[in-house]
Amino acid sequence: MERHFDEELRNLKHRLLEMADVAQEMISIAIRSLVERREELTKEVFELEDRVNHYEVELEEECIRLLSTRQPVAKDLRLITATLKIITDLERVADQAVNIAELATYLLKEPPLKPLIDIPHMATLAQRMLRNSLEAFVRHDAALAGEVCRDDDEVDRINDQIFRELLTYMMEDPKSITRAMDLILVSRNLERIADHATNIAEDVIFIEEGKNIKHHLRDEELPSSI
Amino acid sequence: MERHFDEELRNLKHRLLEMADVAQEMISIAIRSLVERREELTKEVFELEDRVNHYEVELEEECIRLLSTRQPVAKDLRLITATLKIITDLERVADQAVNIAELATYLLKEPPLKPLIDIPHMATLAQRMLRNSLEAFVRHDAALAGEVCRDDDEVDRINDQIFRELLTYMMEDPKSITRAMDLILVSRNLERIADHATNIAEDVIFIEEGKNIKHHLRDEELPSSI
Repeated sequence: MERHFDEELRNLKHRLLEMADVAQEMISIAIRSLVERREELTKEVFELEDRVNHYEVELEEECIRLLSTRQPVAKDLRLITATLKIITDLERVADQAVNIAELATYLLKEPPLKPLIDIPHMATLAQRMLRNSLEAFVRHDAALAGEVCRDDDEVDRINDQIFRELLTYMMEDPKSITRAMDLILVSRNLERIADHATNIAEDVIFIEEGKNIKHHLRDEELPSSI
Repeated sequence: MERHFDEELRNLKHRLLEMADVAQEMISIAIRSLVERREELTKEVFELEDRVNHYEVELEEECIRLLSTRQPVAKDLRLITATLKIITDLERVADQAVNIAELATYLLKEPPLKPLIDIPHMATLAQRMLRNSLEAFVRHDAALAGEVCRDDDEVDRINDQIFRELLTYMMEDPKSITRAMDLILVSRNLERIADHATNIAEDVIFIEEGKNIKHHLRDEELPSSI
């Protein structure tokens, strides 16, 4: 009996990783459309959103089915309730990628404001955080989850820097305002993706170490791999 | 036996409404600090955030305890998994209120850019949506939840209008840029609060009517009180 439930849980995690892969791909394509100035790529992002939404509905149903048929307790129960939360985070990550693609469609109608260096760098960082948070979840790796929380500070720092730089563009040339605004919003969407990864990582630390670090996150409290 | 569980569920809903009340109060005070230009009020918002965070931890633990000790099925199970999601939404609503209070501290350091009419109006609407979504949840009122989803379109419309108006301010006078940017961000925070209310309302419709309207939301599919 127990064996079959283990298999169901493994399958649930596997589907969750597939959902995360689609969300990751959406971020990659959205940023690529912006950097390579290829508007046709934004359509791919909108199409992939449907797949994420299907995963959301399917995985939520599966969690509820497992809760009612298997009536899990302790770690299994926490794994399923955490999965429910992660599904929501991933769906919102996909929303952010859609927002970026929409902003890209506006930005690509006008000449480039500046070479994009910080934004792709920030995207890479946010994607690494998302990948690590899910890996930490499936591998029960609280140290890796701690790394995700630390990376979030770096993302916030880049976000502030981008904001300040674009503000100077706006001040110097009113014609740059709409484009600068759109880039600021892209940067905020990436920052939010990093926040979702951080939410997931905090849940992992909670499951693995039983401590809720959410609202008193200090560096010395984070699990470390050292 | 069943009686005691019913009481526990009632108590859970009651605590959830208390948490929502604190989040609502945070929005009210944050907007009031901005409109009445009273910086001292922003501190109250930051203090109330702690209370919301305590509710979050406490209510999540209570949901997990009920899942493992009562092993609910069917409607009771969905009520608890929906509560888990609503807790997350309310915590993020509180985050948005904190963001607004932070933006207020910047805005109040400079002379007012314009009289604030649309932003308080948008806040009132977002708060009504939040109140109605929770009332729909505790009263099992899918028609009221449908109303929340419809109100979201109006909030989006006001958000767009505010954005366009402030953009013209920025174009005309570079000195207005930072203040206009901050007001745009306040408006986006309110829009996000309305989105959280909509998430809650969609969950209510899902529980009450068993249909997941999330990703194919059309007006004719919304439950109506007529």
